[in-house]
Amino acid sequence: MEKLEETVKGLKYDANGLIPAVIVDASTKAILMVAYMNETSLLATVRTGKTHFWSRSRQKYWMKGESSGHTQDVQAIYTDCDKDTIVFEVVQHGAACHDGYLSCFYRKLNADGDWDIIGKPLFDPKEVYKNTK
Amino acid sequence: MEKLEETVKGLKYDANGLIPAVIVDASTKAILMVAYMNETSLLATVRTGKTHFWSRSRQKYWMKGESSGHTQDVQAIYTDCDKDTIVFEVVQHGAACHDGYLSCFYRKLNADGDWDIIGKPLFDPKEVYKNTK
Repeated sequence: MEKLEETVKGLKYDANGLIPAVIVDASTKAILMVAYMNETSLLATVRTGKTHFWSRSRQKYWMKGESSGHTQDVQAIYTDCDKDTIVFEVVQHGAACHDGYLSCFYRKLNADGDWDIIGKPLFDPKEVYKNTK
Repeated sequence: MEKLEETVKGLKYDANGLIPAVIVDASTKAILMVAYMNETSLLATVRTGKTHFWSRSRQKYWMKGESSGHTQDVQAIYTDCDKDTIVFEVVQHGAACHDGYLSCFYRKLNADGDWDIIGKPLFDPKEVYKNTK
């Protein structure tokens, strides 16, 4: 087994074989999204330099941007003390969020205990995803 | 039910009643740690302004810093499009990582496919946690 494969297998996956991946903008350090990877999608991410995930809702392996063109080029990869989370610094093409915002974290808690929308949409999701289900 | 409680209940928890929380340094935006909260620890976090988590390994509710004194003061709270992840910007007292590093993400993948230690320890864990199990 090559070293990279051994390193990927050496991470701690949950009962479903998944590990959370935090995706960060390489220049601003803003958190763009959090999604899940399994061993296969993590290896594909490292080997291709484009982020690949496992969709829990669709039970499907996917490359970020395969529908929208909004791919992410991996610049650096980090893991934590417990090796049960990964952080990726990426160059984001287009926007990370399927709602049209650069970051999925476009809601901020306000003093009334409710969410304010703080992001500005970069695209119209209906337009970008019109050919996908 | 007050609005805050309704907002907390309106988030998406996993099958174990947990939601991942990404903890970010409010000034540098560096990711300090990723841990899990349940409804109770999230409400305690918002109400006290100090981060509280649910430990999956110890099956225990805990305030970050209760042993080490290394508490986190919450400055801002964000959630994502799916409302299944939370991001907290905090002022970190001491260090976030129980291994003695400011951030738990002190390992970076190198070109050989192995992890390099890139953090510098701020304290000796044996000293800080000597009175805890």
